[in-house]
Amino acid sequence: MNIVYKSDPERGRRWAALFAELAPEAQFRLWPEVGDPETVDYLIAWQPPDNLMQRFPNLKVLFSVGAGADQFDYAGLPPGLPVVRMIEPGLTQGMVEYVTFAVLGLHRDMPRYLHQQQCGEWQPHPVMPAARRRIGVMGLGQLGEASLAALTALGFSCHGWSRTPRDLPGVRCWAGQAELPDFLAASDILVCLLPLTAETRGLLNRDLFSGLPHGAALVQAGRGPQLNQPDLLAALETGQIRAAVLDVTDPEPLPSDHPFWAHPSIWLTPHIASQTQPESAVASLLENVRRFERGEPMTGVVDRQRGY
Amino acid sequence: MNIVYKSDPERGRRWAALFAELAPEAQFRLWPEVGDPETVDYLIAWQPPDNLMQRFPNLKVLFSVGAGADQFDYAGLPPGLPVVRMIEPGLTQGMVEYVTFAVLGLHRDMPRYLHQQQCGEWQPHPVMPAARRRIGVMGLGQLGEASLAALTALGFSCHGWSRTPRDLPGVRCWAGQAELPDFLAASDILVCLLPLTAETRGLLNRDLFSGLPHGAALVQAGRGPQLNQPDLLAALETGQIRAAVLDVTDPEPLPSDHPFWAHPSIWLTPHIASQTQPESAVASLLENVRRFERGEPMTGVVDRQRGY
Repeated sequence: MNIVYKSDPERGRRWAALFAELAPEAQFRLWPEVGDPETVDYLIAWQPPDNLMQRFPNLKVLFSVGAGADQFDYAGLPPGLPVVRMIEPGLTQGMVEYVTFAVLGLHRDMPRYLHQQQCGEWQPHPVMPAARRRIGVMGLGQLGEASLAALTALGFSCHGWSRTPRDLPGVRCWAGQAELPDFLAASDILVCLLPLTAETRGLLNRDLFSGLPHGAALVQAGRGPQLNQPDLLAALETGQIRAAVLDVTDPEPLPSDHPFWAHPSIWLTPHIASQTQPESAVASLLENVRRFERGEPMTGVVDRQRGY
Repeated sequence: MNIVYKSDPERGRRWAALFAELAPEAQFRLWPEVGDPETVDYLIAWQPPDNLMQRFPNLKVLFSVGAGADQFDYAGLPPGLPVVRMIEPGLTQGMVEYVTFAVLGLHRDMPRYLHQQQCGEWQPHPVMPAARRRIGVMGLGQLGEASLAALTALGFSCHGWSRTPRDLPGVRCWAGQAELPDFLAASDILVCLLPLTAETRGLLNRDLFSGLPHGAALVQAGRGPQLNQPDLLAALETGQIRAAVLDVTDPEPLPSDHPFWAHPSIWLTPHIASQTQPESAVASLLENVRRFERGEPMTGVVDRQRGY
């Protein structure tokens, strides 16, 4: 098994050590030291090199180093090449932590309190019980399901929405465009964990915001291009949205003169909600490689029609 | 049953409505409309009036409207008068939310990210897995136990410390002064939920901070006078403490020129971690009154020797 890693070099060295320990039979090569390109079976990358198949003519699988695979230019990839998103417990745990933090913060008015702190103002506000606070999560894959489990355990009233119907314990689920209005109307705090596809690009816009209860809050941990930025600023201006926690933007990094940076009702983090954890990621990837080599289906294979 | 409520009048009206519904036989009186003072059996208050027993000579029980009862001047209260702290699920839920929010925020470096936001800086930092992050909770009453359960469920490595030995599922517990150093050395994030007593006054000081791992973080949701404020500022200066989330101060409100307000590594909230929720508080209080009238022990009775 010959495998090339092309992403952050520091993390790559951690991957190399883990491969040496967990799969000593594998040849793990850190980009740009790829060895004989004709012998490369697998590529792990965030951005693959140009002319991928000319460079690695015998490539069998392209693995994304992250939860998304929307960064790949599929037009340049052979139709038969499996592309696999990263599904691993460390990535899921990170997102659960981020979403739980953001939802609790919005639930308890923390952006307002931290803004008050900047103004030197000591002013308590009433609390709504978690059982009456309705949380709506868009995107019910691995990350959405795990986040909803944590929020349910904290006593929130939890709802979900996805492209195709899902059934989750303790969570009322809606599906498809037709049921989106009902879902939005029941979401005091909206959490976006959707993948980036043609349908989700620009989805978080004025129309969608106007379907939320007045004074709703937003957690955006999906992908930057899903959010219409001027529409969010307008919704914050009118109070239709009272606060937003954003982990992704378009572009990233956000330009230094962008109005999100200094907005008192926006918390901005630099795409850190969920990072692949080498320990658990290497184990998940090796399991997928073993399945592939036995001719079994891998987990996380991208459906190019669907877009994720 | 004649009962007087002396605290926030707006919340008092909510209590009155709940009493009318849940205990229509009770006479619920909102301070200062106390009716015939000789007929008052129970007082619910944050601060009782001066000359309490002259005013209500037949008072049977003094109930605190909050989780603490350190605000009472016990020298002025008859030794035989039971004083009862509020233990109710709404108060516990609020503290669990606050502690979970604060611990997740410190775990994921959020004070640093929000400070970066103010500086227009997009810079991710490495993440430590929750399983390796050691959370130490001081104070293992109702609030500490429930907070530890939520933190354990999120995958943190949880520890507890209390005056007297406790045994909690999935939590390593230490007790007493002798075991404090071992507990502190194992606390990457220290959460104080202790009651205010002679022993806990000033406990969060330089000595204690120096027993934590370098770069530890602090959540203070106990009582303001437990924290030595100059010692915290000094520990933040050296990096011995990297960040702190404070819900209580001394005095409250904090004076407008206090250095905590503008400190980049301090998140300050105006004593809002946990507020008594009228719905669940009235139910808990009525249950205690019924126990008292049947001659059974009430929950939350203050041990004046112990101080809580």
